[in-house]
Amino acid sequence: MRGLHLTADLYQCRCDDRLLRDAGQLGPWCRQAAESVGLEVEHEVFATDPQRSSVALLLAGSHVCLHTWPGDRSASVDVYLSQPEVDLSAKARGLMFALVQRLQPEWTEQRSLDRGDGQ
Amino acid sequence: MRGLHLTADLYQCRCDDRLLRDAGQLGPWCRQAAESVGLEVEHEVFATDPQRSSVALLLAGSHVCLHTWPGDRSASVDVYLSQPEVDLSAKARGLMFALVQRLQPEWTEQRSLDRGDGQ
Repeated sequence: MRGLHLTADLYQCRCDDRLLRDAGQLGPWCRQAAESVGLEVEHEVFATDPQRSSVALLLAGSHVCLHTWPGDRSASVDVYLSQPEVDLSAKARGLMFALVQRLQPEWTEQRSLDRGDGQ
Repeated sequence: MRGLHLTADLYQCRCDDRLLRDAGQLGPWCRQAAESVGLEVEHEVFATDPQRSSVALLLAGSHVCLHTWPGDRSASVDVYLSQPEVDLSAKARGLMFALVQRLQPEWTEQRSLDRGDGQ
Protein backbone atom coordinates (compact mmCIF):
# COMPACT_ATOMS: atom_id res chain seq x y z
CA MET A 1 0.00 0.00 0.00
CA ARG A 2 3.02 2.31 -0.08
CA GLY A 3 2.08 5.58 -1.68
CA LEU A 4 2.41 9.32 -1.94
CA HIS A 5 -0.34 11.69 -0.85
CA LEU A 6 -0.09 15.30 -1.99
CA THR A 7 -2.45 17.94 -0.63
CA ALA A 8 -2.87 21.53 -1.79
CA ASP A 9 -5.05 24.35 -0.52
CA LEU A 10 -5.44 27.09 -3.12
CA TYR A 11 -6.36 30.72 -2.49
CA GLN A 12 -7.52 33.51 -4.79
CA CYS A 13 -7.79 31.32 -7.86
CA ARG A 14 -7.66 33.47 -10.98
CA CYS A 15 -8.98 30.84 -13.42
CA ASP A 16 -12.27 31.18 -15.31
CA ASP A 17 -15.11 31.46 -12.81
CA ARG A 18 -17.06 28.65 -14.49
CA LEU A 19 -14.34 26.15 -13.68
CA LEU A 20 -14.85 26.84 -9.97
CA ARG A 21 -18.66 26.92 -10.14
CA ASP A 22 -19.52 23.96 -12.33
CA ALA A 23 -18.52 20.38 -11.49
CA GLY A 24 -19.65 19.52 -15.03
CA GLN A 25 -16.58 21.40 -16.24
CA LEU A 26 -14.34 20.69 -13.27
CA GLY A 27 -14.85 16.92 -13.33
CA PRO A 28 -14.05 16.12 -16.97
CA TRP A 29 -11.07 18.49 -16.87
CA CYS A 30 -9.77 16.78 -13.73
CA ARG A 31 -10.19 13.36 -15.32
CA GLN A 32 -8.41 14.51 -18.45
CA ALA A 33 -5.51 15.84 -16.36
CA ALA A 34 -5.18 12.45 -14.62
CA GLU A 35 -5.24 10.59 -17.93
CA SER A 36 -2.68 13.00 -19.35
CA VAL A 37 -0.08 11.78 -16.84
CA GLY A 38 -0.88 8.15 -17.66
CA LEU A 39 -3.38 7.31 -14.90
CA GLU A 40 -6.45 5.18 -15.49
CA VAL A 41 -9.61 6.53 -13.85
CA GLU A 42 -12.00 3.75 -12.82
CA HIS A 43 -14.88 5.81 -11.46
CA GLU A 44 -15.78 9.45 -11.01
CA VAL A 45 -18.43 11.44 -9.16
CA PHE A 46 -19.20 15.14 -9.38
CA ALA A 47 -21.41 17.42 -7.27
CA THR A 48 -22.27 21.10 -7.49
CA ASP A 49 -24.35 23.39 -5.31
CA PRO A 50 -24.31 27.21 -5.17
CA GLN A 51 -21.57 27.27 -2.52
CA ARG A 52 -19.15 24.68 -3.88
CA SER A 53 -18.28 22.03 -6.44
CA SER A 54 -16.64 18.67 -5.79
CA VAL A 55 -15.01 15.94 -7.83
CA ALA A 56 -13.78 12.52 -6.72
CA LEU A 57 -11.89 10.22 -9.07
CA LEU A 58 -11.30 6.63 -7.99
CA LEU A 59 -8.26 4.87 -9.44
CA ALA A 60 -6.68 1.50 -8.57
CA GLY A 61 -5.95 1.85 -4.85
CA SER A 62 -5.80 5.61 -5.28
CA HIS A 63 -7.95 8.72 -5.46
CA VAL A 64 -7.99 12.31 -6.65
CA CYS A 65 -10.39 14.73 -4.90
CA LEU A 66 -10.99 18.37 -5.68
CA HIS A 67 -13.31 20.81 -3.94
CA THR A 68 -13.89 24.43 -4.92
CA TRP A 69 -15.53 27.31 -3.06
CA PRO A 70 -16.22 29.87 -5.81
CA GLY A 71 -17.45 32.51 -3.34
CA ASP A 72 -13.94 33.03 -1.99
CA ARG A 73 -12.16 31.58 -5.03
CA SER A 74 -10.49 28.86 -2.99
CA ALA A 75 -10.02 25.16 -3.63
CA SER A 76 -8.54 22.04 -2.07
CA VAL A 77 -6.84 19.29 -4.05
CA ASP A 78 -5.79 15.77 -2.98
CA VAL A 79 -3.75 13.41 -5.12
CA TYR A 80 -3.15 10.06 -3.43
CA LEU A 81 -1.46 7.41 -5.57
CA SER A 82 -0.58 4.03 -4.14
CA GLN A 83 0.46 0.83 -5.86
CA PRO A 84 2.72 -1.90 -4.46
CA GLU A 85 6.14 -2.05 -6.10
CA VAL A 86 5.41 0.80 -8.50
CA ASP A 87 6.71 4.30 -7.81
CA LEU A 88 3.92 6.65 -8.83
CA SER A 89 5.41 9.72 -7.17
CA ALA A 90 6.38 11.40 -10.47
CA LYS A 91 2.83 10.99 -11.77
CA ALA A 92 1.40 12.32 -8.51
CA ARG A 93 3.59 15.40 -8.66
CA GLY A 94 2.91 15.92 -12.37
CA LEU A 95 -0.84 15.73 -11.83
CA MET A 96 -0.79 18.07 -8.83
CA PHE A 97 1.30 20.55 -10.81
CA ALA A 98 -1.19 20.47 -13.71
CA LEU A 99 -4.23 20.92 -11.45
CA VAL A 100 -2.74 23.81 -9.47
CA GLN A 101 -1.41 25.52 -12.59
CA ARG A 102 -4.84 25.44 -14.25
CA LEU A 103 -6.64 26.94 -11.24
CA GLN A 104 -4.08 29.79 -11.06
CA PRO A 105 -4.05 30.47 -7.31
CA GLU A 106 -2.31 33.56 -5.96
CA TRP A 107 -0.87 31.37 -3.23
CA THR A 108 -1.03 27.80 -2.01
CA GLU A 109 -0.32 25.62 0.99
CA GLN A 110 0.99 22.23 -0.08
CA ARG A 111 1.96 19.10 1.83
CA SER A 112 3.54 15.82 0.84
CA LEU A 113 2.80 12.70 2.92
CA ASP A 114 4.60 9.39 2.47
CA ARG A 115 2.00 6.77 3.35
CA GLY A 116 2.11 3.07 4.05
CA ASP A 117 5.73 3.05 5.21
CA GLY A 118 4.96 1.26 8.46
CA GLN A 119 4.74 -2.30 7.20
CA MET B 1 -12.96 26.15 3.06
CA ARG B 2 -11.47 25.68 6.53
CA GLY B 3 -11.48 22.01 7.42
CA LEU B 4 -9.87 19.06 9.12
CA HIS B 5 -8.24 16.24 7.19
CA LEU B 6 -7.48 13.03 9.07
CA THR B 7 -5.43 10.27 7.48
CA ALA B 8 -4.81 6.76 8.80
CA ASP B 9 -2.72 3.91 7.46
CA LEU B 10 -3.75 0.59 8.98
CA TYR B 11 -1.63 -2.55 9.27
CA GLN B 12 -2.48 -6.18 10.05
CA CYS B 13 -6.23 -5.61 10.10
CA ARG B 14 -7.92 -8.39 12.06
CA CYS B 15 -11.48 -7.75 10.83
CA ASP B 16 -13.48 -10.24 8.75
CA ASP B 17 -11.61 -10.93 5.51
CA ARG B 18 -14.70 -10.18 3.43
CA LEU B 19 -14.75 -6.58 4.61
CA LEU B 20 -11.28 -6.08 3.12
CA ARG B 21 -11.98 -7.99 -0.10
CA ASP B 22 -15.40 -6.78 -1.13
CA ALA B 23 -16.20 -3.14 -1.82
CA GLY B 24 -19.86 -4.22 -1.88
CA GLN B 25 -19.55 -4.71 1.89
CA LEU B 26 -16.96 -2.03 2.54
CA GLY B 27 -18.86 0.75 0.78
CA PRO B 28 -22.28 0.49 2.45
CA TRP B 29 -20.61 0.01 5.84
CA CYS B 30 -18.48 3.12 5.28
CA ARG B 31 -21.53 5.12 4.24
CA GLN B 32 -23.44 3.92 7.29
CA ALA B 33 -20.55 4.96 9.55
CA ALA B 34 -20.58 8.46 8.03
CA GLU B 35 -24.34 8.76 8.46
CA SER B 36 -24.05 7.52 12.05
CA VAL B 37 -22.02 10.61 12.99
CA GLY B 38 -24.58 12.87 11.29
CA LEU B 39 -22.97 13.36 7.89
CA GLU B 40 -24.96 13.44 4.66
CA VAL B 41 -23.39 11.44 1.84
CA GLU B 42 -24.18 12.92 -1.59
CA HIS B 43 -22.47 10.37 -3.83
CA GLU B 44 -20.49 7.18 -3.49
CA VAL B 45 -18.37 4.97 -5.73
CA PHE B 46 -16.95 1.53 -5.01
CA ALA B 47 -14.37 -0.59 -6.85
CA THR B 48 -12.98 -4.06 -6.22
CA ASP B 49 -10.33 -6.12 -7.96
CA PRO B 50 -8.41 -9.14 -6.61
CA GLN B 51 -5.65 -6.94 -5.15
CA ARG B 52 -7.69 -4.19 -3.49
CA SER B 53 -11.00 -2.55 -2.79
CA SER B 54 -11.77 1.16 -2.78
CA VAL B 55 -14.56 3.42 -1.62
CA ALA B 56 -15.02 7.15 -2.15
CA LEU B 57 -17.86 9.07 -0.50
CA LEU B 58 -18.53 12.62 -1.63
CA LEU B 59 -20.13 14.97 0.89
CA ALA B 60 -20.73 18.74 0.75
CA GLY B 61 -17.21 20.12 0.23
CA SER B 62 -15.79 16.99 1.83
CA HIS B 63 -14.80 13.41 1.13
CA VAL B 64 -14.15 10.07 2.78
CA CYS B 65 -11.89 7.61 0.95
CA LEU B 66 -10.93 4.11 1.99
CA HIS B 67 -8.63 1.66 0.22
CA THR B 68 -7.87 -1.88 1.34
CA TRP B 69 -5.15 -4.32 0.28
CA PRO B 70 -6.42 -7.67 1.56
CA GLY B 71 -3.24 -9.53 0.55
CA ASP B 72 -1.28 -7.82 3.32
CA ARG B 73 -4.32 -6.88 5.41
CA SER B 74 -3.58 -3.17 5.19
CA ALA B 75 -5.81 -0.19 4.51
CA SER B 76 -5.70 3.57 4.16
CA VAL B 77 -8.45 5.90 5.34
CA ASP B 78 -9.01 9.61 4.63
CA VAL B 79 -11.66 11.72 6.31
CA TYR B 80 -11.68 15.31 5.06
CA LEU B 81 -14.53 17.49 6.33
CA SER B 82 -14.75 21.14 5.41
CA GLN B 83 -17.58 23.60 5.76
CA PRO B 84 -17.31 27.38 6.28
CA GLU B 85 -18.28 28.54 9.76
CA VAL B 86 -19.14 25.03 10.97
CA ASP B 87 -16.69 23.06 13.10
CA LEU B 88 -16.90 19.48 11.86
CA SER B 89 -13.77 18.29 13.67
CA ALA B 90 -15.69 16.23 16.25
CA LYS B 91 -17.57 14.43 13.47
CA ALA B 92 -14.33 13.84 11.57
CA ARG B 93 -12.65 12.32 14.63
CA GLY B 94 -15.75 10.27 15.49
CA LEU B 95 -15.95 8.85 11.98
CA MET B 96 -12.23 8.04 11.82
CA PHE B 97 -12.46 6.34 15.20
CA ALA B 98 -15.39 4.19 14.02
CA LEU B 99 -13.70 3.21 10.75
CA VAL B 100 -10.39 2.26 12.39
CA GLN B 101 -12.10 0.41 15.22
CA ARG B 102 -14.09 -1.74 12.80
CA LEU B 103 -11.05 -2.73 10.72
CA GLN B 104 -9.15 -3.75 13.89
CA PRO B 105 -5.57 -2.97 12.85
CA GLU B 106 -2.68 -4.16 15.00
CA TRP B 107 -1.11 -0.75 14.52
CA THR B 108 -1.77 2.49 12.69
CA GLU B 109 -0.08 5.65 11.51
CA GLN B 110 -2.40 8.63 11.80
CA ARG B 111 -2.05 12.28 10.88
CA SER B 112 -4.22 15.32 11.42
CA LEU B 113 -4.01 18.24 8.97
CA ASP B 114 -5.68 21.60 9.51
CA ARG B 115 -6.52 22.81 6.02
CA GLY B 116 -7.65 26.10 4.57
CA ASP B 117 -6.09 28.23 7.29
CA GLY B 118 -4.24 30.47 4.87
CA GLN B 119 -7.03 32.80 3.83
